[in-house]
Amino acid sequence: MATLFKDVYIADGSRTKAERVHLLVSKGRIAQIIDASQTPPAADKIISGRGHMAVIPGFVNAHTHAAMILLRGLGEEAPLMEWLQNKIWPVEDKLTPEYIYWGTLSAMLEMLATGTTCFADMYFEMERVAEAVLGAGMKAALCRGITAGAPGKIERSLSNNLDLAKNYHGREGLITVQLGPHAPYTVPMDYMRSITDAAKTNGLGVHFHFLETKGELDNLGMSPTDYLKESGLLNTPYTVLAHAVWLDPKTELPDNVSLVHNPCSNLKLGSGIMPLTEWLERGAVVALGTDGASSNNRLDMWEEMRTASLLHKGATMNPVCVSALDVLRMATYEGARAFGFAQKGMIQEGWFADLVLVNLDKPHYIGVNEENLAAYLVYAGSSADVLGTMINGRWIYRNGEYPTLDAEEIMIKAREARDAITR
Amino acid sequence: MATLFKDVYIADGSRTKAERVHLLVSKGRIAQIIDASQTPPAADKIISGRGHMAVIPGFVNAHTHAAMILLRGLGEEAPLMEWLQNKIWPVEDKLTPEYIYWGTLSAMLEMLATGTTCFADMYFEMERVAEAVLGAGMKAALCRGITAGAPGKIERSLSNNLDLAKNYHGREGLITVQLGPHAPYTVPMDYMRSITDAAKTNGLGVHFHFLETKGELDNLGMSPTDYLKESGLLNTPYTVLAHAVWLDPKTELPDNVSLVHNPCSNLKLGSGIMPLTEWLERGAVVALGTDGASSNNRLDMWEEMRTASLLHKGATMNPVCVSALDVLRMATYEGARAFGFAQKGMIQEGWFADLVLVNLDKPHYIGVNEENLAAYLVYAGSSADVLGTMINGRWIYRNGEYPTLDAEEIMIKAREARDAITR
Repeated sequence: MATLFKDVYIADGSRTKAERVHLLVSKGRIAQIIDASQTPPAADKIISGRGHMAVIPGFVNAHTHAAMILLRGLGEEAPLMEWLQNKIWPVEDKLTPEYIYWGTLSAMLEMLATGTTCFADMYFEMERVAEAVLGAGMKAALCRGITAGAPGKIERSLSNNLDLAKNYHGREGLITVQLGPHAPYTVPMDYMRSITDAAKTNGLGVHFHFLETKGELDNLGMSPTDYLKESGLLNTPYTVLAHAVWLDPKTELPDNVSLVHNPCSNLKLGSGIMPLTEWLERGAVVALGTDGASSNNRLDMWEEMRTASLLHKGATMNPVCVSALDVLRMATYEGARAFGFAQKGMIQEGWFADLVLVNLDKPHYIGVNEENLAAYLVYAGSSADVLGTMINGRWIYRNGEYPTLDAEEIMIKAREARDAITR
Repeated sequence: MATLFKDVYIADGSRTKAERVHLLVSKGRIAQIIDASQTPPAADKIISGRGHMAVIPGFVNAHTHAAMILLRGLGEEAPLMEWLQNKIWPVEDKLTPEYIYWGTLSAMLEMLATGTTCFADMYFEMERVAEAVLGAGMKAALCRGITAGAPGKIERSLSNNLDLAKNYHGREGLITVQLGPHAPYTVPMDYMRSITDAAKTNGLGVHFHFLETKGELDNLGMSPTDYLKESGLLNTPYTVLAHAVWLDPKTELPDNVSLVHNPCSNLKLGSGIMPLTEWLERGAVVALGTDGASSNNRLDMWEEMRTASLLHKGATMNPVCVSALDVLRMATYEGARAFGFAQKGMIQEGWFADLVLVNLDKPHYIGVNEENLAAYLVYAGSSADVLGTMINGRWIYRNGEYPTLDAEEIMIKAREARDAITR
């Protein structure tokens, strides 16, 4: 079935100027893009934008822990360690595979309604997460969060993560699997090396928390450069470093290493402000993520884009840094690239039709045009403007409805899970 | 006509714990609040919350230039002076009274849909702004922005501002009028004194831009304390200082002086970060505002609340400062208080029924309860959750409709105005 977006604006992270086009989606791909002045191609289904809609790439939430929506709001306004030790960890221990399944689905409702087509998730019981993703027809980069603990725990987690890869990597073109060593402070160095070795052997990427807090840097026991070298993280097929708030932007990183900026979570936990402007100047691949909803508390990439741009303009007192185009690219193409999703994150013929339809027929879009669309989207727009979210050419969210999901059941089950773990 | 909100949560800036109640609105006021376990009172109209809705005070946007929505998106990613001189001022010169009227109305559509019941506006052609406000049934604190220029300009502006006060101050209980000297760098000191004298003589407050940028502080020619004293700003009936990014929080301020924090605008223009935590510790009255949409670019107080809380937690690396309750109070009660609106900004019997109805039946509110409602609203909520906005007991926005405004005509006229000034 072919869907035509007739007379819509398109914008993405590669276009300094938006365009007004007809865009045809067929067989899960962007089949044709022609100027809006031309005769539109035929299609089974026509969405008439009349110059009051935009089509942009679906967002890639490049670092989250989806099922943590079940822990949202626990221990607000508490210092980090009190929050973790008294509020998060005891409750997290009560999570069952079923709770994680429904929690992840509930998080997906939020992400889909705000235009996210793909999310990078690090948690546990990831088979259930993978099933949730496949059932919905969403895309995801999945890894098992591996941490040391009781004897044998880390080996079991790694084995579990490798099983996840065997069973789900590449499934239906929707899932990529990474290995997920949690952080320097939860995985001893010798295990880090065995995990990065396993990544090489199995051709898998690695998703890792690195230098989120100053304390983590102080306790690293060596320089970040030495850590990255010794751990083997620089020699995997690809490595994604989440947070990197305290990583010196002069650090040499090879091309296979990407960063994920999580501005809202870093602010909310008082972790510090990542030196984004320097990384962008150096041409590093920096994606954007929300982190878990227990420390954000939204799973809304519009919010991350806007906060990233405003925060760094303010923190550096330079209103021309971190442009709307920069954050739009980070929130889409860079996330896809970091996690091994090819032909995703831009509006180009032949690329996957992972798209967000945006309503421009609202007062805050008065004055929008080809020159300024990206700025309007990032600075004036919000997820309330999302009309629909399409993945591989199929609507997964449209006008408040979820064609592939039973939203009512999901919310009931997620509420039950929340009640059970906080009882 | 009485409206009953049956079984809803209420939250405001004074409640450390939300409550589940029946809330009766009658004759424009909150007539009765009783526990949800009791029998609800009779009413003409019943809104059944079933524990999945919240009622909160309408937001007071304590510093904006509403008609500047017509200038939104002009000169993005440009340094401040280039932006002002090449993009904003030449276009602003083309604004007519009609354009300002329709631009203000269009801004009001945005504000009402996001839960704002009152806005503090500094611009020109303010009679047209006042008529827009009265026509809609919204509340506003209005002043003429007074700047020096051609001989006699400043006198004419002051005279115009005093006429505005004579004709509109207190009108229908919807409007308060202030005098609006623009800023230290646009109003010479002798004029500042005549304006503050006029404020005293006429019993009016003053709304003033103060120390938005470092350059302004450097060029003040005296200490901020001396400036405030010499200008007479400390001796008006009340003075509201917008921005105050570079005002030392050790500065002694009398009780009649309030501040307005505009976090998004300050970040976007790279002006700096106001020392909010110190002002709050000192017990200063600090309200919240969006500033004009040309430097934000939203008129959405949910965004200001969230950004204010997250920004200062991040900037001070203290996750327990500037709580959800703090910003909720700033966005409601403190704004009303700063601009002379009594009995507004809290959910209390006898107070004005300026209320926002919020939909909690969404995935991101799973887990909400009396203890954490304020945190859910500020950190997880957004203006997309607004079901309705009521002013003096009357719906001015409800389920996407504006009962007192012709939204379609307003958007057409605002688009025409935008086209005309940017042609």
